[in-house]
Amino acid sequence: MTKVHNYSAGPCILPQEVFEEASKAVLNFNNSGLSLLEMSHRSKDFVDVMEEARSLVKEVLNVPEGYTVLFLQGGASLGFLMAAYNMMGKNKKGGYLNTGTWAKNAIKEANFMGEGVVVASSEDKNFNYIPKGYAIPSDLDYFHYTSNNTIFGTQFKAIPETDLPLVCDMSSDIFSKKVDISKFDLIYAGAQKNLGPAGATLYIVKDEILGKSSVKIPTMLNLKTHVDKDSMFNTPPVFSTYVSMLTLRWLKKNGGIEWIEKRNEAKAHLLYSEIDANPNFEGTTAVEDRSNMNVTFVLKDEANTEKFNNLLKEANISGLKGHRSVGGYRASMYNALPLESVQALVDVMKKL
Amino acid sequence: MTKVHNYSAGPCILPQEVFEEASKAVLNFNNSGLSLLEMSHRSKDFVDVMEEARSLVKEVLNVPEGYTVLFLQGGASLGFLMAAYNMMGKNKKGGYLNTGTWAKNAIKEANFMGEGVVVASSEDKNFNYIPKGYAIPSDLDYFHYTSNNTIFGTQFKAIPETDLPLVCDMSSDIFSKKVDISKFDLIYAGAQKNLGPAGATLYIVKDEILGKSSVKIPTMLNLKTHVDKDSMFNTPPVFSTYVSMLTLRWLKKNGGIEWIEKRNEAKAHLLYSEIDANPNFEGTTAVEDRSNMNVTFVLKDEANTEKFNNLLKEANISGLKGHRSVGGYRASMYNALPLESVQALVDVMKKL
Repeated sequence: MTKVHNYSAGPCILPQEVFEEASKAVLNFNNSGLSLLEMSHRSKDFVDVMEEARSLVKEVLNVPEGYTVLFLQGGASLGFLMAAYNMMGKNKKGGYLNTGTWAKNAIKEANFMGEGVVVASSEDKNFNYIPKGYAIPSDLDYFHYTSNNTIFGTQFKAIPETDLPLVCDMSSDIFSKKVDISKFDLIYAGAQKNLGPAGATLYIVKDEILGKSSVKIPTMLNLKTHVDKDSMFNTPPVFSTYVSMLTLRWLKKNGGIEWIEKRNEAKAHLLYSEIDANPNFEGTTAVEDRSNMNVTFVLKDEANTEKFNNLLKEANISGLKGHRSVGGYRASMYNALPLESVQALVDVMKKL
Repeated sequence: MTKVHNYSAGPCILPQEVFEEASKAVLNFNNSGLSLLEMSHRSKDFVDVMEEARSLVKEVLNVPEGYTVLFLQGGASLGFLMAAYNMMGKNKKGGYLNTGTWAKNAIKEANFMGEGVVVASSEDKNFNYIPKGYAIPSDLDYFHYTSNNTIFGTQFKAIPETDLPLVCDMSSDIFSKKVDISKFDLIYAGAQKNLGPAGATLYIVKDEILGKSSVKIPTMLNLKTHVDKDSMFNTPPVFSTYVSMLTLRWLKKNGGIEWIEKRNEAKAHLLYSEIDANPNFEGTTAVEDRSNMNVTFVLKDEANTEKFNNLLKEANISGLKGHRSVGGYRASMYNALPLESVQALVDVMKKL
């Protein structure tokens, strides 16, 4: 069977060797005679998995002392709420950059127990750029942004400058490039892009923030609950955490963040060069804010749609349909997507 | 390799054929050339999985019209909070039966946005019985109980009588026996006992309750959010939902709830008979409240501990250690545990 070129926006492609090892673990984990799925999460076998996963996150991202790594449930959508609960201070106001759908959802949850203040927005141009040159009010408790915007294809090329505690939803570009973790007080990310399958959510928490919120927090939404219990307050998402650990092993073994950053840059360069050179296509975002993870583009002549779609199908390229709020095409090129898949897409674009 | 007799309290044993099919899906799902883990949750393949899982829950449990089935994240621990948020009415008071650790945790979350009123408790005897003959105050918005108490080995043999909206945490005995779903307004259950692996949480919601809470609810904790989006408001726990669907198929194919209820009764009868007949052992709970899922017992003479533990090990029986709050032994006999495993345990008990 010809392997599909999988451009799915998430859940998305993971390394083939990860699938192979995960498949075996479902039948017989660590030669225990038991499936990973039927083992107690308190067993030594699984506690080792959780600890290796947490430790690999620290190693691969070069997380400094004073931070705790958690694998929880709920997705970034629950993260929006948890971030606001845990970061609210005496002003009960968080500052947000509104860069699209996910940022908006994060702001909405801050308004539940405090106020989500929109510091700057790119909604005026359907989020096709990253806001710059804004002033940050001084009466905020924290500053929140979404590092990569999957739907609109924009990405922050630098960490915003602020003296406020910094919070970031890194769901769709964490582990894709080097990041100075010491700049952040809280990072959260749904696993289902560069880290693993759906069902796990990563938190990287600066220990200093714990227990300092000005609002009362329900047990499960309080990061301190989970930090105090080494990410095992309740039954964790066992399988998703395990597959995330396998993916982190793959990343480390191949050269870590430096290796993947170069590979991602090569993939992005290849595709954006074609978009810019090919008269049939046009990128949808400001050039300086283009995402290396999600490349959004349109056909200049919509009459070519059927022909292009057929060519994609013939080449076994899947998952390229753009999100309904932008239209056109979106090539999601997460860590595990090989350069060959991007070449296959570029070849099809040249054929049109 | 000799198969282990897996008495794990959860995550726990699931049918072998489920592991085999799940293992294949991790490599190549539905002959798509893609792993289930790398497919979009919006793909037809996965939407079909979610719909079949939801529909099988209705079929197997004979869920009447007017209820919606959801597969969400967070475990029953988040369910404690969601139940209280969604059920609070004009009194802002929920009534609870305190039958152990999980019931206590549920009460704590109700106190976050209202009041969790303890209607009756068995804490006076370390939760070794189910409270009976209590009066339910009339100024409550709902009545909550935990149908089976994994740690203490007690189980409700009948649904409590009340005119209040009825809420139940059925994490550890759902799908083990016939239940009249029409008596309930809300049922929730962590998947990792009779339904599937860790990472999914089942909700069965009476549609009538939606949108009627007297308190403001954060987006992700509002059941209406998920009902309105057919359990796909955000990325669902894809793999755990799929494995749950496979387990439900297995249950249906073998004869459904009537079949499993008889099998579970036979397993419980075999083990409790041995506990009562064997002078070396003693059950820890009130006889009339004994759980068919978690059988708790102790050695009458602690000097036999090492000998008994060695016999268990020789027979490849794992997961029998009691919870620290009760001590002794706990045999968790969820749906997929075969009668042969119980016979193996009884054989060891006779040998002592």
